[in-house]
Amino acid sequence: MKNIITVSREYGSGGYEIGQKVAEALGYKFYDRELIAQLADQLMVSESYIENQENKLVKKNIFRELAPFFADSMGADADYIYDEQGKFIVKLAEEGNCVIAGRRADYYLRNNENALHLFFYADEEYKVKRIMEAEKCSKDEALKKIADMDKRRKTSYEYTTGRKWADRHNYDRMICTSSLGSDKCVEEIVNLIKLSQQ
Amino acid sequence: MKNIITVSREYGSGGYEIGQKVAEALGYKFYDRELIAQLADQLMVSESYIENQENKLVKKNIFRELAPFFADSMGADADYIYDEQGKFIVKLAEEGNCVIAGRRADYYLRNNENALHLFFYADEEYKVKRIMEAEKCSKDEALKKIADMDKRRKTSYEYTTGRKWADRHNYDRMICTSSLGSDKCVEEIVNLIKLSQQ
Repeated sequence: MKNIITVSREYGSGGYEIGQKVAEALGYKFYDRELIAQLADQLMVSESYIENQENKLVKKNIFRELAPFFADSMGADADYIYDEQGKFIVKLAEEGNCVIAGRRADYYLRNNENALHLFFYADEEYKVKRIMEAEKCSKDEALKKIADMDKRRKTSYEYTTGRKWADRHNYDRMICTSSLGSDKCVEEIVNLIKLSQQ
Repeated sequence: MKNIITVSREYGSGGYEIGQKVAEALGYKFYDRELIAQLADQLMVSESYIENQENKLVKKNIFRELAPFFADSMGADADYIYDEQGKFIVKLAEEGNCVIAGRRADYYLRNNENALHLFFYADEEYKVKRIMEAEKCSKDEALKKIADMDKRRKTSYEYTTGRKWADRHNYDRMICTSSLGSDKCVEEIVNLIKLSQQ
């Protein structure tokens, strides 16, 4: 019985919007940056402070490989925020009926049997077209954005979770959004959730 | 509009059986070794001859990287059979309404817009349990079988197609069979095919 969906994705695949529409169709809550805002509120610190801590954590873990002793002296706050975010997401998921985009939710909820972990990807042509339209940019700029964003996501994910980004074994379904288009993906996932609850 | 399904899979994931049941549910033809038999018939040679040629082709392409000049003198027959199998699968798919398991069908039909390319995988525990039951073997034997078979599939696929085995970009959907069990996978795929035809 699945009533929690985590959304991971390639930049430009449209996974974020699909997640939103699935939440709407199922009457589930949708969490993303709002999640950080809530967390920030809970911890009584600002959103940008948390983002800074996350970046620090990535740097710290990169350093850890190169110079373990030096790394350990870097920001203990970062580990704290990271742990807190994990706990927060685990707590949030206890209520069920939600879609969580990004925030390493697939990792934090890896042992939650009610969670369905989705990864969205797409053909390059499809992603480029979407980005060019949404951001009014050139093809080259779109391609650069895809490379940069996915690299950032991959680095951040891998250095904070110790798992491989986009490795199929971390997800229940990997969905190519360009195969049938995003509207049909929404129907497909709604059907799948209902099927899991039968 | 999808009415051709190709099935690729990890050993033990149950993708083969799911493909069979999907074909049954949709009233589609199911092709696998039968495909080789038909091909053999068409080419008036034996099934084992074709298998031998396939193995030769793998060896030849491995050699090609190490010693290009030497490789070129190896079995021209192998290339011939390989091309023929590709042409045969492309021709078979023209009729539509079929499920094709293995045989690199995802590669041969990569440009067929009616083809839905599926890759099945599963948690190790799930695969081991299935294999132990089906083959009455120990856990260690099951684990060895998984490693051996997947390595063989990977090598064969990569050396004959030049593509990476299990790379998400070669497939429309990657499905973890252990998440909801195989019966629900069958329903899910039948639903998906119907959705694509709406």
